[in-house]
This record gives sequence, structure tokens and C-alpha cells, in this order.
Amino acid sequence: MRQFVVIGHDAPTTPDFSLDDLAGAAGRLDVLCRCVTSAFFLSHAIREDVRVHLVLADEYTVTFEGNELRRLNPDERSTAALVRNALEEREEAIGHVPVESSPGVSLTRRGFAATLDDVARGGIVVQLHEDGDPVVDVDPPTDPVFVLSDHHEFSDAETDHIERHAAERLSLGPEPLHADHAITVAHNYLDTDGFERY
Amino acid sequence: MRQFVVIGHDAPTTPDFSLDDLAGAAGRLDVLCRCVTSAFFLSHAIREDVRVHLVLADEYTVTFEGNELRRLNPDERSTAALVRNALEEREEAIGHVPVESSPGVSLTRRGFAATLDDVARGGIVVQLHEDGDPVVDVDPPTDPVFVLSDHHEFSDAETDHIERHAAERLSLGPEPLHADHAITVAHNYLDTDGFERY
Repeated sequence: MRQFVVIGHDAPTTPDFSLDDLAGAAGRLDVLCRCVTSAFFLSHAIREDVRVHLVLADEYTVTFEGNELRRLNPDERSTAALVRNALEEREEAIGHVPVESSPGVSLTRRGFAATLDDVARGGIVVQLHEDGDPVVDVDPPTDPVFVLSDHHEFSDAETDHIERHAAERLSLGPEPLHADHAITVAHNYLDTDGFERY
Repeated sequence: MRQFVVIGHDAPTTPDFSLDDLAGAAGRLDVLCRCVTSAFFLSHAIREDVRVHLVLADEYTVTFEGNELRRLNPDERSTAALVRNALEEREEAIGHVPVESSPGVSLTRRGFAATLDDVARGGIVVQLHEDGDPVVDVDPPTDPVFVLSDHHEFSDAETDHIERHAAERLSLGPEPLHADHAITVAHNYLDTDGFERY
């Protein structure tokens, strides 16, 4: 299982946003939607052994479960609609009990720290960092958990929390990447481990 | 200079499409828009030494020039608006003379073969293929040109044309990727050449 936790610092916490302005009024939800697409889509298939957690403004987390997903399309707008549907259920999300809004998509009332604490129980947290070890020099962990941020840097508190959990600190390359591109590169690194002469 | 030629088999050739249905009525223009984003965006910068050519239904080609681009945002909708603006100028595109619709974005009246013939004069065409040599085993070409397709496979005629130009046949990994994800991986492969112990 590969997991990705993506922090949306400005993401909406209510469903009353327009699908026509994801990059503006919807708090850069476009970035989070592309992260979902990068995490799940192969050319003609869905990666079933993947889970994505979108943390919305440190208040809610929307989780996408690869082996249960239906109705996921690769464009930003339709993914944003799934997030919006999940937020419609926010009154039902009580404590840390998730509520499913569509097949494979669920909402939990919790922020980044509680989400990462939970996810870290089921995997190895990898910190992506420009000063980390080059990814090709490291044996890929089983059940990796990658933590990414939207267009903002991690806050100090977020970094502290990641470092508390992180088993490894890796660099994907010399260029700083958007979160969705980092997910694509991370997948490729895991895919190619053991691939022919890789 | 890194160049990417992306074939949009069902892409629109007139500007009368809605930005609200890129994945449907606009012929999967969402894929082409994500290719533009993958090709140009670093975390807080644009890759200036990149050129992208979107071939629209084998009739027009919209070219994005990294070192001249303005007003490019990473979301699909705003990139689609730039394509639509380019198509507004289609009456001005006569012969193979490009017409600029916004800074760094131009439209040419030509299809895939003519575009690739032209682009191949300025770079080394790389064919991406599942049976190609693993990308990490090959020294990156100077001035590579990658050819990609939207959600459809290449036609036989397109494959023939690519093979006529291609100097190398590379595989990016064992999993078949969406075109925009392939661009991200190709960039990473080029970025990491010579990076520390890579």
C-alpha cells in the first residue's frame, strides 16, 4: 500500500465553492485534485493499492481508497466535485468516525496531526526534502507514506510532526516540484524498483 | 531545450467549447492542459528552456514557449482558456506561419506530421515505448523531443512517422502512464542526470 497525505492549507471546509474557480476562490483545490489524479491513474487503470488523504484547512480529511473508488475521472473539475460531495456530509462526521460520501471517498473530521498519526500506524513515513538522500540510492520502503503540501511550504509545526514520524528523508531530484508531480515521480521510483536493469 | 509534442486526437479546432466540460465536449482537452502544466511548472518557477506543441485534431498546433510565457497558471481551466484564445486567431494562421495569441502562445495551421518534421530539425526525437531501453541506462540526449498521445494510442501512421524521426526508443518504467505523468517522469530523468550520486 502506498499512501499520500496532502495538506491543503487554504482548501475549503464547506461545499459552497464553485467548480469554475478551483485555483482561486476554492483555495487551490486544483492542486489537491491533480494530486488525486497523479496518485491513482495509470494509462488505462486505477492503482488499487493506493490511498490518498487530502487535509482540508487542518479541519477535515477526505480519504480516497483505490480499491473501492468509483466515478473517479482524471480531470480536476470532476475530482473537485467528489471533494464537494464529501463536504456535504460534514455534519455526519462526528469524532474520528469517517462518513462515506461516494464509493471509496470518505470524510473525517480531523486535521493533519491526527491524520498522520493514524496513517503512520500502517506505513513508513517518508519525508521528502531537498537535502534528503537521492531516492535511487535507497531501497524503497514497504508501505510508504509520503507527505506533501499544496502551494505553501510546510509550517514549522507540520514539519516537526512529520519529522517525529519519518523513518527516511529522501530527495526526488534537484528541482523543487509541485506536489502532484512529486507523487508521479515517487510512483515511478517505486514502480521501477527491480524493473529490468533498474 | 526540451520539447514535447502532444497529440490531441479529439481536441477542438474551434474556440466554441465550454471550459466547464474539458473532459467531455472539449475532447479531453484536460489531458493536454495537464501536459502543459507538467512541462513548464516547477514549484515556484517556470521551466524556461521548454517548448510544448499541442496538436489539435491533426489540423492546428498550439505552441507554448517557456522563455516567453506569461499568464500561465497550473490549473486546467486557465490553460484551456489560453488554447481557446489561440483558436480565436485561427483565421490569421495562414500556411505554416504562426500567429501569437498571448505572450509565448502561438497557433500554426498544421497537423502532427508537419509539426514533428519541423521540431525534429531542432532536437533528438525520443520514442517512448514499453519495450524501449530503460531510461536510466541511457545518457540523456541533448535537446530531446518527446512525442506523446492523449487518451488514445498512436495511430499506425503516427507511429510510422515517429519511428522515421526517432533516434532512441526509451521506456520510462513498467507501468503505462498518462501523457502528463510521462512528461513529469521524463523531466525528472533529465533533471537527475548528474545529480549527486544519480
